[in-house]
Amino acid sequence: MSTFGHLFRVHTYGESHCKSVGCIVDGVPPGLKLTEEDIQVQLSRRRPGQSDITTARSEYDTVHLQSGTEHGVTLGTPIGLLVHNKDQRPHDYAETDLYPRPSHADYTYLAKYGVKASSGGGRASARETIGRVAAGAIAEKFLKEAYGVEIVAFVSGVGKVGLPFEEEENEVLGKEYMDLVRTVKREEVDKEITRCPHKETSQKMEAAIRAAKAADDSLGGVLTCVIRNAPLGLGEPCFDKLEASLAHAMLSIPSTKGFEIGSGFRGAMFPGSQHNDMYIEGGPDAQGRLRTETNWSGGVQGGISNGEDIYFRIAFKPPATIAQAQSTARYDGSAGTLEAKGRHDPCVVPRAVPIVETMAALVIMDMVLQQNARTAAASLLPALTHLPPTMVLPSKKTVEKIQNGEEKVQVQNQKSGEE
Amino acid sequence: MSTFGHLFRVHTYGESHCKSVGCIVDGVPPGLKLTEEDIQVQLSRRRPGQSDITTARSEYDTVHLQSGTEHGVTLGTPIGLLVHNKDQRPHDYAETDLYPRPSHADYTYLAKYGVKASSGGGRASARETIGRVAAGAIAEKFLKEAYGVEIVAFVSGVGKVGLPFEEEENEVLGKEYMDLVRTVKREEVDKEITRCPHKETSQKMEAAIRAAKAADDSLGGVLTCVIRNAPLGLGEPCFDKLEASLAHAMLSIPSTKGFEIGSGFRGAMFPGSQHNDMYIEGGPDAQGRLRTETNWSGGVQGGISNGEDIYFRIAFKPPATIAQAQSTARYDGSAGTLEAKGRHDPCVVPRAVPIVETMAALVIMDMVLQQNARTAAASLLPALTHLPPTMVLPSKKTVEKIQNGEEKVQVQNQKSGEE
Amino acid sequence: MSTFGHLFRVHTYGESHCKSVGCIVDGVPPGLKLTEEDIQVQLSRRRPGQSDITTARSEYDTVHLQSGTEHGVTLGTPIGLLVHNKDQRPHDYAETDLYPRPSHADYTYLAKYGVKASSGGGRASARETIGRVAAGAIAEKFLKEAYGVEIVAFVSGVGKVGLPFEEEENEVLGKEYMDLVRTVKREEVDKEITRCPHKETSQKMEAAIRAAKAADDSLGGVLTCVIRNAPLGLGEPCFDKLEASLAHAMLSIPSTKGFEIGSGFRGAMFPGSQHNDMYIEGGPDAQGRLRTETNWSGGVQGGISNGEDIYFRIAFKPPATIAQAQSTARYDGSAGTLEAKGRHDPCVVPRAVPIVETMAALVIMDMVLQQNARTAAASLLPALTHLPPTMVLPSKKTVEKIQNGEEKVQVQNQKSGEE
Amino acid sequence: MSTFGHLFRVHTYGESHCKSVGCIVDGVPPGLKLTEEDIQVQLSRRRPGQSDITTARSEYDTVHLQSGTEHGVTLGTPIGLLVHNKDQRPHDYAETDLYPRPSHADYTYLAKYGVKASSGGGRASARETIGRVAAGAIAEKFLKEAYGVEIVAFVSGVGKVGLPFEEEENEVLGKEYMDLVRTVKREEVDKEITRCPHKETSQKMEAAIRAAKAADDSLGGVLTCVIRNAPLGLGEPCFDKLEASLAHAMLSIPSTKGFEIGSGFRGAMFPGSQHNDMYIEGGPDAQGRLRTETNWSGGVQGGISNGEDIYFRIAFKPPATIAQAQSTARYDGSAGTLEAKGRHDPCVVPRAVPIVETMAALVIMDMVLQQNARTAAASLLPALTHLPPTMVLPSKKTVEKIQNGEEKVQVQNQKSGEE
Repeated sequence: MSTFGHLFRVHTYGESHCKSVGCIVDGVPPGLKLTEEDIQVQLSRRRPGQSDITTARSEYDTVHLQSGTEHGVTLGTPIGLLVHNKDQRPHDYAETDLYPRPSHADYTYLAKYGVKASSGGGRASARETIGRVAAGAIAEKFLKEAYGVEIVAFVSGVGKVGLPFEEEENEVLGKEYMDLVRTVKREEVDKEITRCPHKETSQKMEAAIRAAKAADDSLGGVLTCVIRNAPLGLGEPCFDKLEASLAHAMLSIPSTKGFEIGSGFRGAMFPGSQHNDMYIEGGPDAQGRLRTETNWSGGVQGGISNGEDIYFRIAFKPPATIAQAQSTARYDGSAGTLEAKGRHDPCVVPRAVPIVETMAALVIMDMVLQQNARTAAASLLPALTHLPPTMVLPSKKTVEKIQNGEEKVQVQNQKSGEE
Repeated sequence: MSTFGHLFRVHTYGESHCKSVGCIVDGVPPGLKLTEEDIQVQLSRRRPGQSDITTARSEYDTVHLQSGTEHGVTLGTPIGLLVHNKDQRPHDYAETDLYPRPSHADYTYLAKYGVKASSGGGRASARETIGRVAAGAIAEKFLKEAYGVEIVAFVSGVGKVGLPFEEEENEVLGKEYMDLVRTVKREEVDKEITRCPHKETSQKMEAAIRAAKAADDSLGGVLTCVIRNAPLGLGEPCFDKLEASLAHAMLSIPSTKGFEIGSGFRGAMFPGSQHNDMYIEGGPDAQGRLRTETNWSGGVQGGISNGEDIYFRIAFKPPATIAQAQSTARYDGSAGTLEAKGRHDPCVVPRAVPIVETMAALVIMDMVLQQNARTAAASLLPALTHLPPTMVLPSKKTVEKIQNGEEKVQVQNQKSGEE
Repeated sequence: MSTFGHLFRVHTYGESHCKSVGCIVDGVPPGLKLTEEDIQVQLSRRRPGQSDITTARSEYDTVHLQSGTEHGVTLGTPIGLLVHNKDQRPHDYAETDLYPRPSHADYTYLAKYGVKASSGGGRASARETIGRVAAGAIAEKFLKEAYGVEIVAFVSGVGKVGLPFEEEENEVLGKEYMDLVRTVKREEVDKEITRCPHKETSQKMEAAIRAAKAADDSLGGVLTCVIRNAPLGLGEPCFDKLEASLAHAMLSIPSTKGFEIGSGFRGAMFPGSQHNDMYIEGGPDAQGRLRTETNWSGGVQGGISNGEDIYFRIAFKPPATIAQAQSTARYDGSAGTLEAKGRHDPCVVPRAVPIVETMAALVIMDMVLQQNARTAAASLLPALTHLPPTMVLPSKKTVEKIQNGEEKVQVQNQKSGEE
Repeated sequence: MSTFGHLFRVHTYGESHCKSVGCIVDGVPPGLKLTEEDIQVQLSRRRPGQSDITTARSEYDTVHLQSGTEHGVTLGTPIGLLVHNKDQRPHDYAETDLYPRPSHADYTYLAKYGVKASSGGGRASARETIGRVAAGAIAEKFLKEAYGVEIVAFVSGVGKVGLPFEEEENEVLGKEYMDLVRTVKREEVDKEITRCPHKETSQKMEAAIRAAKAADDSLGGVLTCVIRNAPLGLGEPCFDKLEASLAHAMLSIPSTKGFEIGSGFRGAMFPGSQHNDMYIEGGPDAQGRLRTETNWSGGVQGGISNGEDIYFRIAFKPPATIAQAQSTARYDGSAGTLEAKGRHDPCVVPRAVPIVETMAALVIMDMVLQQNARTAAASLLPALTHLPPTMVLPSKKTVEKIQNGEEKVQVQNQKSGEE
């Protein structure tokens, strides 16, 4: 349904041709400074018409805060948000309306609901993402203030053009790629028209997009996203593992076809001896984390964040609307040639950057609240003593004792179903 | 949390060393014939010790039905299920217990909960999957009886060994691969020890697994899964799109790192003109579907099933437990060499086949119930007349009229936010 | 949280002093005729200032539909709705702001969130109910069109004035009361200024309210609500029993203190022999219902609707805001006398009528969708034969056979935990 | 469905004649000491056969912990629990099976599911409550350890016998009744066979139950429950108000017909001037609570706990199964006389005491986790300054300044929708 999240929840409404699109954000912590400007930033990065390689329409989406704040501070009550759609002239039924557009949602919406919006696959429009971006911008604000969380997405592939250093022979992922993941900033991403922060690659991508546009064609691409400084312990196994929730979030974005975390599909080709992330000598750091040498797992073990950078990639298919004539069939089964009109994005991945970032923020925010509920409850209980060292974080002293054979602990008789 | 699904819901419990693992399945339609044997089949395909290339332990997991059926028929009430764990001798605390196992969940479980099961990452154990496989077997039974749904997963990659025909130059995916996806049966999959139904590739995979085993190492791999005959109209946008829910389900399986539907990451490299799925002349078929020539979208448009085969791939990382000595650090930060003992799977993907199939069944089952709730409600309403042809499936007659210019329909004045 | 329902869901936002209040309604069946007028009717019955015995403010709440319909027909996508609040002059901080108003939510909102809206208990304002009434009006429309469901609430008590015939000696409930429940129409309710459809009682209630108003005091009251023609089989045990969900809905309305279904608290005083609802000779009626002579259960058995009228009563406390001086304490603990200003409802129950009706509609609507999902699924399964007559509705013939001793059925060996 | 709660969740399964009944409890905080004995206490208070005025069957329900603990400490993972049912001989189909038992769930279960358990209304059996009582016992343990929460339920009415001091003329509720609510302990409740802690009334109740039993009849009754020391700020408006969630919980218990919090239905008869709970001089107490003189609201304002005792009453109908002959109709519509056999409870309210207490614990536990998630998040944000005194708890100094006219605060221009 049109709800995402458990404790921090966004509910969205609206399609391309109705009065407005918007959302309600429930579960926002009280006492957060929040203004329309905080939300507008990501909405503006998302809107169409930002450059001539995306869409040519110059639409401006202004957010209107309806509720849930006073004096620029959140009250903890639901936040209503909306962005008005623009007036449109009535138009005649066109020959193109006789076709279910290939690889569009026209037909599936009609099949699902028995009736559809005149404009086609209503909620499948990218315009639906306004609500989630607005909500995610609020989550980002909280995460930054509370934990210093940084979320940065960037374009790492357009059509056949990818980062030259993403893969390296006999390495799970390339060293330069991992450096980029570790350090890239939003400002560096936004400097490039393609939102690929590697200038040389960006220029090739731009050329590819311009070529596709000239050919009345479109291109897909890949985004990489990294989440830094997320707390340890996020993720709710066994079904709401962190990577499962991220995958859900990302594949709910229009036009996405794939998700991989950490080493992803490439990692499946390496042996365990090369893929395992070894722990670093020295023990818990200032934030209480045991750090690892490599991070092929993408910051997640057993569905729970381990304190390393969480990074993942998302595949976007090429936009289905192209100006080329397409040989297809009409709703009634008659063969025909569809020639679409209007201005469309030859490539959506640059505009997808803020959508991916804000969806990531929604996942992390919800997980943070769920984990905080647990740790706050556990902290109220009397301290446990006499638990065997297998059940708690063993102290240096305990480790020594065991190594010296001074402490022998019998693990209780248990049922065994180890796999 | 440990719940999956909305209307058809499974709740699981249990870890490796407790008395039993099991689940409650809620929302099972009443009147379905169901016995323990129906469930046992997939549990037996999942259990360890099926061949010498998986684990050497020969465990037999027998399911015990607790409630929700009488005379072999479901009552519509919750079904309780459990599989007993085996008794285990108490054992002394070992030197290996001083290490968080690299790329295991030992450390993240401890960090999340502050306390952990002696056996390590408790619910991250593959043993947790028993509950979901049992529940999914019930979903499969219903889907087969009600719709003839067929779900088949198979191994399409082990380490660096993949199907030779998966990719084809200048084609989104290879013709032979798509044929396999369209036709492969479970029996063909189970004939091969690796569960890769292409004998030649299977033999190479087996060799690779044996080599890894001999080297005290492990291998990851890739599974392909196809769902046939699922009804049109499944998926609950905008957040619970079919592919988003499948991705969530698959990434909740232990050891998974990636998911892609249809053309996936490879599809992102092709232009729209080549990637779009054109409609076939002839109109709705016997099941009321408009069919497409190609199926690069993987049976889903706008997050809703379009009646074509739904297929996807899942990446599994190499098992983290290897018998090789690993240079890592202990919980207290001291450097050391971890040498794991015991018998472990050098490669889990063959055993993952029934897990993937049953998780797919859980997703489809839940979506079917949600969509049926909608269509049942809509069917009770009086028929609508005078809706413009842009909002309904236009009849052949309407199409003709419009083509002849006999019918001109004014689409109402609307707000425009098209993207 | 601010969400109600599972398949038919309303999410609300807004407090007294923000830009607008509104909601998103998700899960509306597609193909329902729906205009703003359909929703306005109940909003207008709810708004303040309808008569001089409620509040004196004459506010007009106009609904604005944002999405989810086209050509006056629902698309099955989320419906956004909003009602604007009015501009208000800034005002100085008043002495009254130093007090947590007694029996108001000022203090609990502050305690819960750490910060509160200047106007006091933000979302505890009756203004919050606008969203739910709007959503419930949509549910009512569907239920009426699909099933002919009628929901009528009326005032059955104001202060100490009640219907004289509600209780009858040695009867669970009075005959005349049950007749009223069975037959009363909304028009009859709206004819009376108090919305008590019994003129004589209404006049007494009106007098009581005017007396309270003159004394700068307030009065509570009781509403009775009946749901007619709801389908058999609604309710989702064991936790979401129909009465449990109705109780949840009703106690979520501001100022409510009690809920009872059917015979309620009074029924607890009667013996089983007098309280049991006997079945009527003649068997299933045209709608397939086995009817009962009495209906003390209020249309629900085991948490599931049995086809009889569903009726219940809700208690409302007297409004906390009164113009009388009140001896209480300030936030800082200093004793003082609070003298509230402004115009307030001396009695809210007349205005609560549409709120109760629409909340009832939300519950029934959600239950209908859940039950339809189940029956639609079950209808796809092959028919069952050879089930023992204890498990299915026995035919006349089977009944005869058993009575004649011609059929003896062994019930299988079972575990017994009967209570 | 068979799930209760959001963050602390119980899922139950099982009916009277299956192998076992049980539950999974998810969201239990890690680090809580927990053994089977902790759970058994409430199960034993719930089981049938405890005295000769309840049922004569002497069943013993022993709980078996399956997962989620080690060394007597919770791991934070799901806890599986079960209680075995007993073997039962097969029995012949009886003449009584031809009747839907009046006011039982036989017929509604059949109508809802199309098939039913041979034993009748399966999950409507009181045996279903085992799972929830077990889960609630875990919640109670946590709440006691973390907050010192005390939950005590007692019988306050059986048939027409009630506490003589519950109502007092011109008082909302009697002083002696409120004293009892404030102080009563479980041990005092359990001392009396009826679980009414007022000896004299208890003896009258016992006599009434024995008379009903002798007459082959049954009696309903009323329970009062109080929750002490629950933290301030519990409840999740606007739909999951504390009283709404408690009402949901209580009305989900078999045989319940009514719920009222605080003054309840009686409170509706009093004017605001008498019903309002005035604040006590002296300001925040040691636990930070502003206390009130009276507590007619039952510890809840605006759906949020205010730190006072939370108390409420629940009505139970008389058990439907009576040994008296009943003139009713069979499934096929033929008139007949039903004579039930077997041993049944003439009055269930004494055994309902632990069910009510544990359901209350489930509600409070879930609310505690939700509120802790919020406060933990808010505590991470930078402190807010310069908020107007209308938005925060004003200090003594601010109060003085305002009283002296030294501080004038302009409340910002706002929309007004005050009601």
